[in-house]
Amino acid sequence: MPYELYYWDGLQGRGEFVRLALEEAGADYVDVTREANGMAAMMRFLKSRTESQIPFAPPFLKDGDLIVSHVANILLYLGPKLGLAPEQESLRFIANGLQLTITDFVAEVHDTHHPLSTNLYYEDQKEAAKQRSADFIEHRIPKFMGYFERVLEQNPDGRKHAVGSQLSYVDLSLFQIFEGLRYAFPRATKRFSEQYPALTALHDAVGQRPNIRKYLASDRRLDFNESGVFRHYPELDQDS
Amino acid sequence: MPYELYYWDGLQGRGEFVRLALEEAGADYVDVTREANGMAAMMRFLKSRTESQIPFAPPFLKDGDLIVSHVANILLYLGPKLGLAPEQESLRFIANGLQLTITDFVAEVHDTHHPLSTNLYYEDQKEAAKQRSADFIEHRIPKFMGYFERVLEQNPDGRKHAVGSQLSYVDLSLFQIFEGLRYAFPRATKRFSEQYPALTALHDAVGQRPNIRKYLASDRRLDFNESGVFRHYPELDQDS
Repeated sequence: MPYELYYWDGLQGRGEFVRLALEEAGADYVDVTREANGMAAMMRFLKSRTESQIPFAPPFLKDGDLIVSHVANILLYLGPKLGLAPEQESLRFIANGLQLTITDFVAEVHDTHHPLSTNLYYEDQKEAAKQRSADFIEHRIPKFMGYFERVLEQNPDGRKHAVGSQLSYVDLSLFQIFEGLRYAFPRATKRFSEQYPALTALHDAVGQRPNIRKYLASDRRLDFNESGVFRHYPELDQDS
Repeated sequence: MPYELYYWDGLQGRGEFVRLALEEAGADYVDVTREANGMAAMMRFLKSRTESQIPFAPPFLKDGDLIVSHVANILLYLGPKLGLAPEQESLRFIANGLQLTITDFVAEVHDTHHPLSTNLYYEDQKEAAKQRSADFIEHRIPKFMGYFERVLEQNPDGRKHAVGSQLSYVDLSLFQIFEGLRYAFPRATKRFSEQYPALTALHDAVGQRPNIRKYLASDRRLDFNESGVFRHYPELDQDS
């Protein structure tokens, strides 16, 4: 039975971190809301008053009877099944910790355009968004990207991967963050390849993997857009 | 060898979710930064240029050679060892998903007083904080607390626990959120016991557990204060 991924249609968003793992592994999955009646199916789970495993929000993954929600939790669950988690159990907690740092970073990326409320339009919080974005570019990008660069440099199994000696879902998520930041903040990320050489090499290597290349060239990969987490609003970008 | 918990001294903060689990289980642990030279020990890990498992931020837990970071990850690791995780493996993913929703909620609580930047003082972002808090009280508290109430109501093993039929670390974290919201927003939470009866019952039951009572009465439990996640600024509170 294929995995069922539930996420908003029309954007990459948080679902994309799961899609990249499923695609890299060549897993059999359905992106439910892109099918007929998929949105209704997703809303039924979210609004159910009887279901025992109710997700707070998309994305969530259905595997048989089990419903797993939150990106890091889905990847924790899928990782070993897809061959994208470290073999050693202790390293799985390291991988999960890294993925949760990525989760926090993604939330901060989102808050650059929605610092005051997810219930207001961007246009109605633009001034606060400019302040938050300036802070994000000055302080938060260097803090997070500098951290991930160190993680690669200090990996005892080599700087090609975030954890262990093999590709893991963490590497795929770092690829996505790198892509997303370059889309949203082309000026702030201009010097990324000098600033973060190990991350740049990881990003480029992931982008060359056959299944990832195929996916990126397919209709299944949506373009970045201003409905997603990574949004390009030129007024929020600046040189770093 | 005792577990070593690393977190900022002087506040409950995110470390408190881990402390509650360790205390409920009567586990042997050291709250490192409350010991002599503890802060220096923590900073050595955070700044290490050689360590292979570097946390992004506190809290993190050291168990022998393993360093586990992020609250949800620490609880995922400790839960089975402390008898605070469901026996059934699939339910552990449900517990982890709930804990990650709690994590997201805690981040939103933090952003009520720091909507623009963690590098600015509260006083320098007070106007944005008022807007964000008003939105939080109107939209986000009901959304999250309503969700957790439904989780309890729809638990097939009974509404006494968030997942399964036994106390888990998720229940302890729900207790902490309930306490924290009442401290930070006494007006907005005034009607919690009518609005969220199952959560209220869970909160009261956890507070009566012998090890939790002992802990809450001890010096190890710090009071809520305006350095933590849950801060009481009367100007941010309002009737719901």
